Amino acid sequence: MNNFNFYNPTRIVFGEGQVAQLDELVPKDARVLVLFGGQSARKNGTLDEVITALGNRHIEEFGGIEANPGYSTLMRAVEQIRQNKLDYLLAVGGGSVIDGTKFVAAAVQCDGDPWQEILVNHATNIRQALPFGSVLTLPATGSEMNANSVITRYETQEKLAFSSKLVYPVFSILDPTKAYTLPPRQLANGVVDAFTHIMEQYLTYPVNAMVQDRFAEGLLQTLIEIGPKLLESPNDYDLQANFMWTATLALNGLIGAGVPQDWATHMIGHEITALHGLDHAQTLAILLPTVLQEQREKKSAKLLQYAERVWGLNEGTDDTKINMAITKTRDFFERMGVKTHLSDYQINADAIPVMIKQLAEHGLTQLGEHNDIDLKKSQQILQASL
Amino acid sequence: MNNFNFYNPTRIVFGEGQVAQLDELVPKDARVLVLFGGQSARKNGTLDEVITALGNRHIEEFGGIEANPGYSTLMRAVEQIRQNKLDYLLAVGGGSVIDGTKFVAAAVQCDGDPWQEILVNHATNIRQALPFGSVLTLPATGSEMNANSVITRYETQEKLAFSSKLVYPVFSILDPTKAYTLPPRQLANGVVDAFTHIMEQYLTYPVNAMVQDRFAEGLLQTLIEIGPKLLESPNDYDLQANFMWTATLALNGLIGAGVPQDWATHMIGHEITALHGLDHAQTLAILLPTVLQEQREKKSAKLLQYAERVWGLNEGTDDTKINMAITKTRDFFERMGVKTHLSDYQINADAIPVMIKQLAEHGLTQLGEHNDIDLKKSQQILQASL
Repeated sequence: MNNFNFYNPTRIVFGEGQVAQLDELVPKDARVLVLFGGQSARKNGTLDEVITALGNRHIEEFGGIEANPGYSTLMRAVEQIRQNKLDYLLAVGGGSVIDGTKFVAAAVQCDGDPWQEILVNHATNIRQALPFGSVLTLPATGSEMNANSVITRYETQEKLAFSSKLVYPVFSILDPTKAYTLPPRQLANGVVDAFTHIMEQYLTYPVNAMVQDRFAEGLLQTLIEIGPKLLESPNDYDLQANFMWTATLALNGLIGAGVPQDWATHMIGHEITALHGLDHAQTLAILLPTVLQEQREKKSAKLLQYAERVWGLNEGTDDTKINMAITKTRDFFERMGVKTHLSDYQINADAIPVMIKQLAEHGLTQLGEHNDIDLKKSQQILQASL
Repeated sequence: MNNFNFYNPTRIVFGEGQVAQLDELVPKDARVLVLFGGQSARKNGTLDEVITALGNRHIEEFGGIEANPGYSTLMRAVEQIRQNKLDYLLAVGGGSVIDGTKFVAAAVQCDGDPWQEILVNHATNIRQALPFGSVLTLPATGSEMNANSVITRYETQEKLAFSSKLVYPVFSILDPTKAYTLPPRQLANGVVDAFTHIMEQYLTYPVNAMVQDRFAEGLLQTLIEIGPKLLESPNDYDLQANFMWTATLALNGLIGAGVPQDWATHMIGHEITALHGLDHAQTLAILLPTVLQEQREKKSAKLLQYAERVWGLNEGTDDTKINMAITKTRDFFERMGVKTHLSDYQINADAIPVMIKQLAEHGLTQLGEHNDIDLKKSQQILQASL
């Protein structure tokens, strides 16, 4: 097991009806800005429920945070907070709204230029941030229980990430019924996203981290078991509850502590989204099976363990088991309704050189747990993903 | 899945050599009291290592905390802290020292009578506690990453527990090499203790908490795999690392969130320790297999799951699988060198009525996840444990 430092102070308040706990969770004298995305939070009643639970506190709203939260939009929230002396934030939504709220929390108390200080300089000089909580409505990214955030500056087509222990949510309310009204595509994307988060931390090479492996395998098995059922029965409380808790644990730092991590699938995937507008999860579904295939020699020990423990493949040679495990991974994504080839999205070989150019421009020339996925290897991966 | 509230802000700093991190973890101007148990921390050099890492800070020592930390002893530490205006505590040891430090941290800033306020009144009126960290030397209790503490008042033979979010360790350093010098009996006890902690939270009845089940099963499988090897090779880094992290995760609130819990084995076991001086883990090894056997009807669904998933028992009828799983549990404890019958410790049927009397006096008349283990049932369990 590698050395590690694990810290996660976010309180999780889990279960149906827990939005009412907001009255206990938010300080009585807080002046609250409620941040949300489109109008679904209003339409499905969650926003009303939140406002009611906050009672007599001073409350203001800030809607319109984009699916990829935008710097200009978020800076308008910063302005509103400063102008009206608000001191507590509440994100109501999925990963985009929570990511955006993290940036706002840090930007409000940032002396310099927020883009430069928080994103370009990775928040290294940030000393304080506003406290905030979240009400999760879309399980997928894990942002509700981590300190990571990705922000887009549309004017310059830049998309940067930051992480700071100052932006752990104080609390996150996970009410599985809030996910009942999600469209099937968002639900399927969430399952693929969570699945890939786990694989990026699990499917590398063994370091004798037995607990982390078992936990990762347990989360994967859970997703495999509930994913397709969830599409059929989105109003099943237990399915949504297990999905929500799995997606949170997939990226709260626990299974990644003390183990090598990959993240090549995510990095290459970001370029496809940037150039072709695919959903984040669609890029993961395309790339993960190919990355496993192309890196199968260096990943062979963990691929075999994955085959045996997660998919129960105990017959045949090691090679057969690994082949089947990769095929089953792809089939799982397809069963979730997420297509796994570039050609399914009308992207052909002509598009690859531009993707490679973008990877080069972004300095993404040493990806994966061994830093051995260079541009040539990325090209092979994309070629094999057609 | 049941509703739950999960919160655990303790930072875990894991790995060989991490004691050196103390200089970063403890405030530079802290006036530190280092608390420890017997002389082993001094003899094996850990105490020196800690003092060196703390550098120029004002440091005082407080040794002699008992295996069951005693109220009078701890109140002397409180006196020393007040007299010398110390403001930071560092526990160096296992669960006893950390439990004791939690009480001291709360008692220093307690206005009323600490026994009454913290233990009898369960810390409900406690508003602050001194910050403290820990350097773990004995994996077993999980105290290094939870807010629980058990304190004994030897004068009155009382043993009470408290829990308060104010006494989460700020950090815990888990260096697996610190466990190399543990005697085999303590190592074996630690494995049995951690195993039983998991079972108390897992082996009840199903509530469709898929992730908690998978995590608990993963921890149990890890202990089964490494336990006997650990006795043979206590200086194997990876074995100790996996044991240490498993024991911590066994009782940090994660696997118990959103599921029913049992704890009858622990409660009855406490009486055996109080009356006959057995090690805590010895009482667990005696009682757990019998509790499973005596409660097998109400626990049947989870027993079957345990048989299949943890022990890989897939042949025969459900009853056969359950029988074998219980037998394998007992065999595992015996393989760890911990005897599993009262008679192995020269305790016979004559001793049972006094134990039952003690359970009655302590109000422990409705134990288990269904509150259905009354005195009659406890008597049956003890009888079957001879």
